[in-house]
Amino acid sequence: MSTVNIAVIGVGLVGKEFLNQLVFLAGSSSPSRRIQLIYASNSRSALWNDGKALDIATCAQKLADGQGIELPLAELPKLLRSTAERPKVILVDNTSSDAVAALYPSFLMHGLDVITPNKKAFSSGLELYRKIMQESMESGKKCLNESTVGAGLPIVATLKDLVASGDEVIKIEGVFSGTLSYIFNEYSTPSGQGPSFSSIVAQAREKGYTEPHPGDDLNGADVARKLTILSRMIPSLKSHLPEGYKSVSITSLVPDKLASVKSGDEFVTRLPEFDAEFEKLREEAQKEGKVLRYVGVIDVQAKVVKAALEKYPTSHAFATSLQGSDNIVAFHTRRYNPRPLIVQGAGAGAAVTAMGVISDLLKLI
Amino acid sequence: MSTVNIAVIGVGLVGKEFLNQLVFLAGSSSPSRRIQLIYASNSRSALWNDGKALDIATCAQKLADGQGIELPLAELPKLLRSTAERPKVILVDNTSSDAVAALYPSFLMHGLDVITPNKKAFSSGLELYRKIMQESMESGKKCLNESTVGAGLPIVATLKDLVASGDEVIKIEGVFSGTLSYIFNEYSTPSGQGPSFSSIVAQAREKGYTEPHPGDDLNGADVARKLTILSRMIPSLKSHLPEGYKSVSITSLVPDKLASVKSGDEFVTRLPEFDAEFEKLREEAQKEGKVLRYVGVIDVQAKVVKAALEKYPTSHAFATSLQGSDNIVAFHTRRYNPRPLIVQGAGAGAAVTAMGVISDLLKLI
Repeated sequence: MSTVNIAVIGVGLVGKEFLNQLVFLAGSSSPSRRIQLIYASNSRSALWNDGKALDIATCAQKLADGQGIELPLAELPKLLRSTAERPKVILVDNTSSDAVAALYPSFLMHGLDVITPNKKAFSSGLELYRKIMQESMESGKKCLNESTVGAGLPIVATLKDLVASGDEVIKIEGVFSGTLSYIFNEYSTPSGQGPSFSSIVAQAREKGYTEPHPGDDLNGADVARKLTILSRMIPSLKSHLPEGYKSVSITSLVPDKLASVKSGDEFVTRLPEFDAEFEKLREEAQKEGKVLRYVGVIDVQAKVVKAALEKYPTSHAFATSLQGSDNIVAFHTRRYNPRPLIVQGAGAGAAVTAMGVISDLLKLI
Repeated sequence: MSTVNIAVIGVGLVGKEFLNQLVFLAGSSSPSRRIQLIYASNSRSALWNDGKALDIATCAQKLADGQGIELPLAELPKLLRSTAERPKVILVDNTSSDAVAALYPSFLMHGLDVITPNKKAFSSGLELYRKIMQESMESGKKCLNESTVGAGLPIVATLKDLVASGDEVIKIEGVFSGTLSYIFNEYSTPSGQGPSFSSIVAQAREKGYTEPHPGDDLNGADVARKLTILSRMIPSLKSHLPEGYKSVSITSLVPDKLASVKSGDEFVTRLPEFDAEFEKLREEAQKEGKVLRYVGVIDVQAKVVKAALEKYPTSHAFATSLQGSDNIVAFHTRRYNPRPLIVQGAGAGAAVTAMGVISDLLKLI
């Protein structure tokens, strides 16, 4: 009987869904393997019983009820470390915290594998990223991040397989933001007609598709983070983005005059002032028989990594087959040529994000 | 330093490409891990040096030059078995042989993991399949088959992740045969006009897209095998196809009168006699604003598994975004709903098939 010990930081939307899926996985697992939860925490407190198994189904509620204890984050790697009696420990970071990400090297050093949908460690400055790679190599432990790009869609794993098997990536091009997918699928159709840009953004916000402040989607930073994560997996681009997503060429859709608006409500109220600018872009595209899509592009040979608003012919897959808030990613490689390998589907949401985490977990156990 | 020992049966098109990719993987592998080839064989002879490492780059040529020794297949599991000095051995079956597939339970029992693009073991009668599952569970060793469906496209792994994380598969629908994809992408376009069916089949054969006898593609058996493989991964369909691909509802495109024609040349010569029948189907589809596609469908609730010629609206992804000989697979699930998770791209060819094998190998090491 081999035991897999799971420690979970973060029991918010994704964290809770992860725990649901973990209950399912533990229940359907092979009898020769036991999956147990030994630690769970939210930003205020933690459940920990000296490494003994916790009840997965009730832990989120217990934390919400304030039944946890206080445990400083910095002590976690030592507390959870892998030991002779507890050889396999997997840390799952379901937060979007920089502070937790900064601990990954220490977790790896203490013999834990790390799985996370948190983009921070992989898309910020190179220093932390390199430390993680280094510690992973030295400890033989893994730091897996499938759901940082496209949530449960097989995007990170596919790129990993392409690279590891010696294929040569020529270009990766895709719609990486569910929010911007929705906005432009609604805004820019082959007819070139439709509601104003600001009204679609307002509608998307009401549906809960945007961040509370839609500028956090429109600034392109999330797309740039995803491009950074993928770029660093491509050998020839490994060191190409020293400052992470800040090194990516980003076209922000936030009008300059609204850049300093802190309130999401105010932002949405003032956005109509800029509808004419967006309308011009839509008309231009329509005249060329094209539609607008906010895409991420990694052009390996040219070493261009950009998040930008681009025009695509109405016959292009980004125009014809993309709907709702779906992501689509096309891998153009030496082998997948002239037609790319394409992965498409919902790229955000708690259930599919948690599935990406479970997918990584399955690779480790 | 951990050593991964690889034994390869079959060094044909896929096998050679696998060895190429293995050289790459071994060279770029972490310094704490050694990947070595300890056995390689073709249908006539084998290279084996008491478990010592063979030169990967030259072994296919050595076998072609007749430098191998004779080793009966039945002795292989014992010969290659995992031992204290050689704990990790992975058997890669790059053949399409029933005889090799029949040995998988024995390989697993002797402590080997098995990886293969060979569909036989997973798509024939339930008995062998169950034995494999049983031995895998008892030994804790894996039998992985990513490239049996869609070659290097992440299809098997995606379904595995969906099921393991507790998603509920509603329907899987796709174009699973590269050959039939090409034929109908060329034959049935939104205009409803174009060359005759037989001329496209003849052309596909000349390009090397079909089997030597095109009837082996047109009979739908290959699609039915792939549907069997996927169906058996879905809990509620596990025992649904007792005779494997023969239990699938198959629409064969081989005209009855040509069913007994053994020669591929004769088949192609006589196929024009049946062009009018196909033309009728094409016209019918066109009148409905649809195109013809040869698809595989797994309808989980209705327990219908069929390989059939179906009509799709010209706005459907199978009509708009499918080109060349690409595969496309749409997973409709509780989570990926109303829009499915879609994977698309080349689903045949030695390089992408070998990549699927390498992808499995990466999961094991």
